[in-house]
Amino acid sequence: MRFFSDNAAPAHPKVLEAIAAANRLDTAYDGDEWSQKLDGAFSDLFETEVRALWVTTGTAANCLALAALCPPYGGILCHKDAHIEVDEAGGPGFFTGGAKLILLDGPGAKVSPDTVAAACDRIRKDVHQVQPAALSITNATEYGLVYRAAEVAELGRFAKSRGLAFHMDGARLANAVASTGEKLADVTWRADVAALSFGFVKNGGLSAECLILFRTDLAEEVQVRRKRAGHLLSKGRYLAAQLLAMLDGDLWLENARAANAAAQKLASAAPQRLVYPVEANEVFLNVTEDEAARLRALGFDFYDWGPGEIRLVTSWDQQGDDLDRLASAIAAL
Amino acid sequence: MRFFSDNAAPAHPKVLEAIAAANRLDTAYDGDEWSQKLDGAFSDLFETEVRALWVTTGTAANCLALAALCPPYGGILCHKDAHIEVDEAGGPGFFTGGAKLILLDGPGAKVSPDTVAAACDRIRKDVHQVQPAALSITNATEYGLVYRAAEVAELGRFAKSRGLAFHMDGARLANAVASTGEKLADVTWRADVAALSFGFVKNGGLSAECLILFRTDLAEEVQVRRKRAGHLLSKGRYLAAQLLAMLDGDLWLENARAANAAAQKLASAAPQRLVYPVEANEVFLNVTEDEAARLRALGFDFYDWGPGEIRLVTSWDQQGDDLDRLASAIAAL
Amino acid sequence: MRFFSDNAAPAHPKVLEAIAAANRLDTAYDGDEWSQKLDGAFSDLFETEVRALWVTTGTAANCLALAALCPPYGGILCHKDAHIEVDEAGGPGFFTGGAKLILLDGPGAKVSPDTVAAACDRIRKDVHQVQPAALSITNATEYGLVYRAAEVAELGRFAKSRGLAFHMDGARLANAVASTGEKLADVTWRADVAALSFGFVKNGGLSAECLILFRTDLAEEVQVRRKRAGHLLSKGRYLAAQLLAMLDGDLWLENARAANAAAQKLASAAPQRLVYPVEANEVFLNVTEDEAARLRALGFDFYDWGPGEIRLVTSWDQQGDDLDRLASAIAAL
Amino acid sequence: MRFFSDNAAPAHPKVLEAIAAANRLDTAYDGDEWSQKLDGAFSDLFETEVRALWVTTGTAANCLALAALCPPYGGILCHKDAHIEVDEAGGPGFFTGGAKLILLDGPGAKVSPDTVAAACDRIRKDVHQVQPAALSITNATEYGLVYRAAEVAELGRFAKSRGLAFHMDGARLANAVASTGEKLADVTWRADVAALSFGFVKNGGLSAECLILFRTDLAEEVQVRRKRAGHLLSKGRYLAAQLLAMLDGDLWLENARAANAAAQKLASAAPQRLVYPVEANEVFLNVTEDEAARLRALGFDFYDWGPGEIRLVTSWDQQGDDLDRLASAIAAL
Repeated sequence: MRFFSDNAAPAHPKVLEAIAAANRLDTAYDGDEWSQKLDGAFSDLFETEVRALWVTTGTAANCLALAALCPPYGGILCHKDAHIEVDEAGGPGFFTGGAKLILLDGPGAKVSPDTVAAACDRIRKDVHQVQPAALSITNATEYGLVYRAAEVAELGRFAKSRGLAFHMDGARLANAVASTGEKLADVTWRADVAALSFGFVKNGGLSAECLILFRTDLAEEVQVRRKRAGHLLSKGRYLAAQLLAMLDGDLWLENARAANAAAQKLASAAPQRLVYPVEANEVFLNVTEDEAARLRALGFDFYDWGPGEIRLVTSWDQQGDDLDRLASAIAAL
Repeated sequence: MRFFSDNAAPAHPKVLEAIAAANRLDTAYDGDEWSQKLDGAFSDLFETEVRALWVTTGTAANCLALAALCPPYGGILCHKDAHIEVDEAGGPGFFTGGAKLILLDGPGAKVSPDTVAAACDRIRKDVHQVQPAALSITNATEYGLVYRAAEVAELGRFAKSRGLAFHMDGARLANAVASTGEKLADVTWRADVAALSFGFVKNGGLSAECLILFRTDLAEEVQVRRKRAGHLLSKGRYLAAQLLAMLDGDLWLENARAANAAAQKLASAAPQRLVYPVEANEVFLNVTEDEAARLRALGFDFYDWGPGEIRLVTSWDQQGDDLDRLASAIAAL
Repeated sequence: MRFFSDNAAPAHPKVLEAIAAANRLDTAYDGDEWSQKLDGAFSDLFETEVRALWVTTGTAANCLALAALCPPYGGILCHKDAHIEVDEAGGPGFFTGGAKLILLDGPGAKVSPDTVAAACDRIRKDVHQVQPAALSITNATEYGLVYRAAEVAELGRFAKSRGLAFHMDGARLANAVASTGEKLADVTWRADVAALSFGFVKNGGLSAECLILFRTDLAEEVQVRRKRAGHLLSKGRYLAAQLLAMLDGDLWLENARAANAAAQKLASAAPQRLVYPVEANEVFLNVTEDEAARLRALGFDFYDWGPGEIRLVTSWDQQGDDLDRLASAIAAL
Repeated sequence: MRFFSDNAAPAHPKVLEAIAAANRLDTAYDGDEWSQKLDGAFSDLFETEVRALWVTTGTAANCLALAALCPPYGGILCHKDAHIEVDEAGGPGFFTGGAKLILLDGPGAKVSPDTVAAACDRIRKDVHQVQPAALSITNATEYGLVYRAAEVAELGRFAKSRGLAFHMDGARLANAVASTGEKLADVTWRADVAALSFGFVKNGGLSAECLILFRTDLAEEVQVRRKRAGHLLSKGRYLAAQLLAMLDGDLWLENARAANAAAQKLASAAPQRLVYPVEANEVFLNVTEDEAARLRALGFDFYDWGPGEIRLVTSWDQQGDDLDRLASAIAAL
């Protein structure tokens, strides 16, 4: 019974069906009929014209976007616990050609205009110091907190005022908007987000993430970078079909809601143990080593986040029984 | 009726079945049971201990290997028509951090120890000129010619004598060995190949290629580079399962034989038009513009390779009727 | 008696005097009074507003310019014998982050609009092939040939028509214009050159070359790249002072004329042996191995360029006696 | 009266004399007689066999060394106030191809085995996190503190135990050893330092720094990287001659002692204002904005380091009168 990561979950059956349905001869790379539909489908979803490029990982989506938004000699402001800093093996440095991540503090891996401004203001405006060129936030954050549209907009305004390109790592954006009920448009481009890594794999997909470019002028460059980085699959139709299946009937939203609901159930089992409010599908609990061992002895699997702290991640398919048993076990600690 | 590229073909049904069978919860990245079996399965296939890493594209496989085999300041000797030079958007330069491709001539995109030696000898041994560090060949070549084991061994010996790491782009290695009947071991590591990009997608796969490291000491570095380049998929089980399905019952060989046989049928329809001998699944024909137009008018789709030259690529699933009709049409030109 | 390279020559006494005169306390980096005068002095020289940045090598000047003119995923068209391809240790790949040099043929290392056009036209306009982004020429060329202003202008028009940035490696531009008597402005920015590596070290300087940006909008980026590449010397005043000394009284032109005259003297000693017309300060001669040995036995030092071919390079300070003796020795072969 | 930076000071007359004496024809690049003497001269100085390469900036020396010591996918542990992090425009990211600086805390920009160990231990040993490959310290630090040989040795032992290459930025190493009286050998290679950027420009040099490789096996690679980065000057003799002049009669040590003595005079003028102990040639003082303004009104120039804090840097040539006047002015505040 794994609550280790939403990456461990299987793909949704409709995603598999879509792959099977795409299994016929078509143009290679992204010339196929499915890939050709992506721009339209995501433009509808976001209520504006976007360019939507499939990739196979969030790291690729994030790093391709950052390489287009930040020159090799620029800096990318992000939280010190951001996935791009902590868990992408230095990918941003590789894709950008050596750009620097400028790290920010803030509870729950959230950043605020104040912390961003303070970081910018510490940098001398000369050639000796790396000048910030982009701001990257994760929504929902690595600790499962959610930026509301108004918060993103405030950051977007600040970024604009300083000439910073604005990137959102949306590996769990589905969970974020499922949580707030806000519109995708409001939490992204209307808040000045230029590029979004829109995650689907953690949310019931199989191998397709989507890089959304609100700045459509970047598409040509990003397509070249995607190929150059070995991320232009020769049978792209199978990725595009997955994404279209996730959009169909708002499966992405349904899945995210299911995962969020599972997290809420766990959270309500022991509200006094929560390290952070549970706003998406991640639950961080204060438990002793001994308590963690007891949960594991019952067959539950999860991440030790830090001393006295565990992370539970719920998935779109979290089965009722397992979930109930874990909730009870937590409550009974 | 597409004879445009083997990338256009669908995936083999057994590959889809394997994906479906892998659709259950397991460890993320490459910790799952399928990924864990790859080293063993490919070591058996190659009759030696190898490390086998899934990736999603040949470009990624080639470039990750080259980055491990050649320092940023080194040179990679390859044919001027090699895929890494012509069709990977500068990927080798990106992955290696700026290494230089040193281009060789030779008919049919084949290189010989003589051309390699001549290129090496033109380079002054000083810090002003980029020194060669690796040799890369494609087997079967971009023109469908096949290196026999003895030829590879001769190149391997030369490479060794000059301290060059030896890489093989085996996007169509299956077709090559299906053609010669030689053993995979003989045409690779026994011939001093250090790293191989073993292609499966063109050969009935869906999205999984395999990077084979005969120099197993490189595995740790390559795994890091794979992650850093955004090529470590979070649900890697679906890639590993594809590869295992391709190995099962030698499906990879069966598919390659079918594609090769289809190419032979086309070749025998007009032997006098062949630009190169047909040794794998690619057929280059001398046809006039007018003749090409007539074939297209009959519904056949293919690549204009050069003035008066077309490329036909056959796939594992090339249907008998289409094939017969194309062969007849060619014969009737 | 070295005719090996103009790099072997000493610095002009006035350059040393200028260094000594600059030996007092001033602002570090390029904030000193000498560095601050460069833009003005070179703008006067080029009859237009330029930005002039000191660097210590031609490789740095070339590569910083190319990095600003070509994205990491772009291609730089240049002659196959260009210094940036042959003698900069892959520097362009390093500075640009992996851009590709696309090599052109042409006698005497000169390129023409036709060869450039042919190279461009061979490249498919898709994401698989590296698209050209810049054109780089060397004037005088590596074989001592000179582009006239009209030739450069023709190349500049072509580059513009294809959206290519235009770079000139002017390591020996002084010799070129000393030879033709044309104006610097005509052979550079009026011919659409965007950035120029203006060489001084081979021409009597000590350690200062000058990167001239006709596209002044690039200056901010290039200044950052210069620092980032370790090329912003902390006591820049000594470089700036050298350049100002070279401009003072047109010392750069006087030196170049002296070197050219020396080359002419050697050329006229054996016109029938010339591999190329002598238009600057390099003389390529057809001599047998035996003849070369005889020259060396007389104490002359030079480069074996190829089988039966030697290179003699003359310098600003070539002493009359040595020169006369070499001319006689050549005539007497 | 500048106390802004030791970079503002002129070069020592003997350095200029050496340049003038080297002003004759010789082999280009580093083939001249002066460059050829460097390995020997520095091997004597360090009492072990070293390779000594001239470069023109500390940034180049640091970054070339780091690129040889750390792979593109590795991490370099350093203090958060280290010059390589703060003042080299991201040069390490450029030269290494994207390696990550992993930042450490510690008073006065010093690091200890404990802080290094803690940083290492926070990093999971998997492919998702950048693994540390090197440790870099600055001696004297950016705040003018000095690591004693025993401290360096302790760090060296730790580095060795973790497989970390050990780099020292010695922009002011002369001041450090002038301060402690310890031997260069003890504070470098006997303490397991693999590569040292040995600074001369701040200490009376003109444009030559020296990269010392105690790991002599790295020399070949570093020489290639130096050329590739545009740092192989064509008339290298003028750099080598500077370095030899600085070694001659221990001028480097004499100059450093003079600068240190000047700093001590300032420090003793107001010991109660010192932010850090004065161990080299930098003096950080607590002064109010108003006090700083008063010093400036007297004609003294210096850096505002932070709120209520100024930095004074003394040079090898600090004139007695100015120094006395500043000391009095500080005492009188």
